[in-house]
Amino acid sequence: MISTDIAIIGAGPVGLFAIFEAGLLKMRCHLIDYLPQVGGQLSEIYPKKPIYDIPGFPSVLAQELVDNLMEQGKPFHPGFTLGERIEGLEKRGEADFVLTTNMGTVIEAKVVVIAGGLGCFEPRKPVVAGLEKFENGRGVNYMILDPEKYRDQKMVIAGGGDSALDWTIFLADVCSELTLVHRSEAFRGAPDSVAKVMELAEKGKINLILNSNLNAVHGEGKLETVDIIHNKTMETISVAADHLIPLFGLSPKLGPIEQWGLNISKSAIEVNVDDYSTNVPGVYAIGDINTYTNKLKLILCGFHEASLMSHSAYQYMNPGVKYTMKYTTVNGVSEF
Amino acid sequence: MISTDIAIIGAGPVGLFAIFEAGLLKMRCHLIDYLPQVGGQLSEIYPKKPIYDIPGFPSVLAQELVDNLMEQGKPFHPGFTLGERIEGLEKRGEADFVLTTNMGTVIEAKVVVIAGGLGCFEPRKPVVAGLEKFENGRGVNYMILDPEKYRDQKMVIAGGGDSALDWTIFLADVCSELTLVHRSEAFRGAPDSVAKVMELAEKGKINLILNSNLNAVHGEGKLETVDIIHNKTMETISVAADHLIPLFGLSPKLGPIEQWGLNISKSAIEVNVDDYSTNVPGVYAIGDINTYTNKLKLILCGFHEASLMSHSAYQYMNPGVKYTMKYTTVNGVSEF
Repeated sequence: MISTDIAIIGAGPVGLFAIFEAGLLKMRCHLIDYLPQVGGQLSEIYPKKPIYDIPGFPSVLAQELVDNLMEQGKPFHPGFTLGERIEGLEKRGEADFVLTTNMGTVIEAKVVVIAGGLGCFEPRKPVVAGLEKFENGRGVNYMILDPEKYRDQKMVIAGGGDSALDWTIFLADVCSELTLVHRSEAFRGAPDSVAKVMELAEKGKINLILNSNLNAVHGEGKLETVDIIHNKTMETISVAADHLIPLFGLSPKLGPIEQWGLNISKSAIEVNVDDYSTNVPGVYAIGDINTYTNKLKLILCGFHEASLMSHSAYQYMNPGVKYTMKYTTVNGVSEF
Repeated sequence: MISTDIAIIGAGPVGLFAIFEAGLLKMRCHLIDYLPQVGGQLSEIYPKKPIYDIPGFPSVLAQELVDNLMEQGKPFHPGFTLGERIEGLEKRGEADFVLTTNMGTVIEAKVVVIAGGLGCFEPRKPVVAGLEKFENGRGVNYMILDPEKYRDQKMVIAGGGDSALDWTIFLADVCSELTLVHRSEAFRGAPDSVAKVMELAEKGKINLILNSNLNAVHGEGKLETVDIIHNKTMETISVAADHLIPLFGLSPKLGPIEQWGLNISKSAIEVNVDDYSTNVPGVYAIGDINTYTNKLKLILCGFHEASLMSHSAYQYMNPGVKYTMKYTTVNGVSEF
């Protein structure tokens, strides 16, 4: 069992900065994230994109900011449990919390900080009758982990964004037959990716079906055919397929957090603006996952919330102990 | 007359970041600071010191942070009035404010943001009867602007910090006679400066009087002698002096801000934590100068306050206009 002062759910930029703020007050942190690496959306979705609104950085790449925050927290030796999702939160006795992940990891903590961003990102699924029958290894997947798995297979991809376009280009040479289905004629992806997909279609390397939607899936035990319906003519065609990959983006979900007795408003956790504490004593929420009057979902606001939370958590863990803030410019940072 | 959307009193790090946050909402800023350069305490007091608690910077020199913030605000072309102090704040009609400086500069603004840090720094003066009679060119000064002014003159310096030590070392060769008076035997300054001063005293280049305080000042029209009293023996000696420079540090003062009808508590301006507005509509206070429950005087907290203030100021200036926040990562920064 892992034991720590503060369990931080979410290892995005705000959770990472909380390590530093807690560390200045001599509190140890352990972070848990469903993603396989730290950095949250910054590392997962836009690592190479510049961010312009972090104070003191006229421009910084998302991954660079994450790396800097990891470096800043390093003197305080945080622990990490990555690729696992917290499922259970239990209060044990007066003081301590016990958290359990979907993989069975158990973490004991004096304080819990939810820094979960917009929640866990889950794939948006199209509404197609019987689709779930073919999930879990029977032909339907919502993300591509190992493209080699699809070599010489018959594949249908659905979607019109960058993921759908990029994978279509990549898999055109890998699959024996590749069909891309999109509900419109216009794509949302990068213009040069659109041009490449059009060229592949003209050359007959892929089968491009526009103005159409997925309509039905069929197969005995595993996927065999996908029915596709035209938006205007309502004509339906059947395409033989070993695999169907709908790529309609990721949608954030609060997930198990909704079951912990916290006050929730519009998929965000209500907090007291004095210290970003929730209605459950000892549980805080900081960053994009919380809500209060005039809340702005900005990373820089989460940084501020992390600092006020840390001072409040210190008081919660050390009732009656008087603390005088020391400035790092005067005292430096003391590793522990 | 200068006309702007937001007049920001104070050009420290928080005032500078407000330029950027206001700029994203298409509001123009004009900053006024009593110091001759931007950056507040960071540039004036510790430009070469590293700061460790700015999120995303494991370490950054104070002046480097100021330079970065200036760069970040550049696309929004802020105006500056430096080396002048706002003396008057008047509300004109329903909407606009008129600010006047000690030099007579007039600035008209729709919104006023006080980002004045700890206020204006004023020298701490010793309690010595009649001292003020010799201020303003008659022998008593609280800072040294041009050391050449003291060549071949008789000088008394009082104090035990770095300023007193550094100026004593520098002026030992400039003045014809130099006396350093300090109330204790121990100095607060850098050890090597202390060693140098001790050496100068041993060599007879300066007159070092320890465990003593300034007691009285005498002269006809201009300073002639300074009386110095020993702390324990209470023995008093008179030292002939053309100049007396007490160097007891700088003390922050709110100054004229106290007269503007704002709610003040312990030298800080009370604000509404929802948007950092004061009790005067259209006037905000951000950074170290404000106070609210659990306030932390951290630069990173001031950054957050600047962002919430900007959104509130936008609503104040554009009542009823609906605004949807755009993310810079998606939309970039549009210069104006």
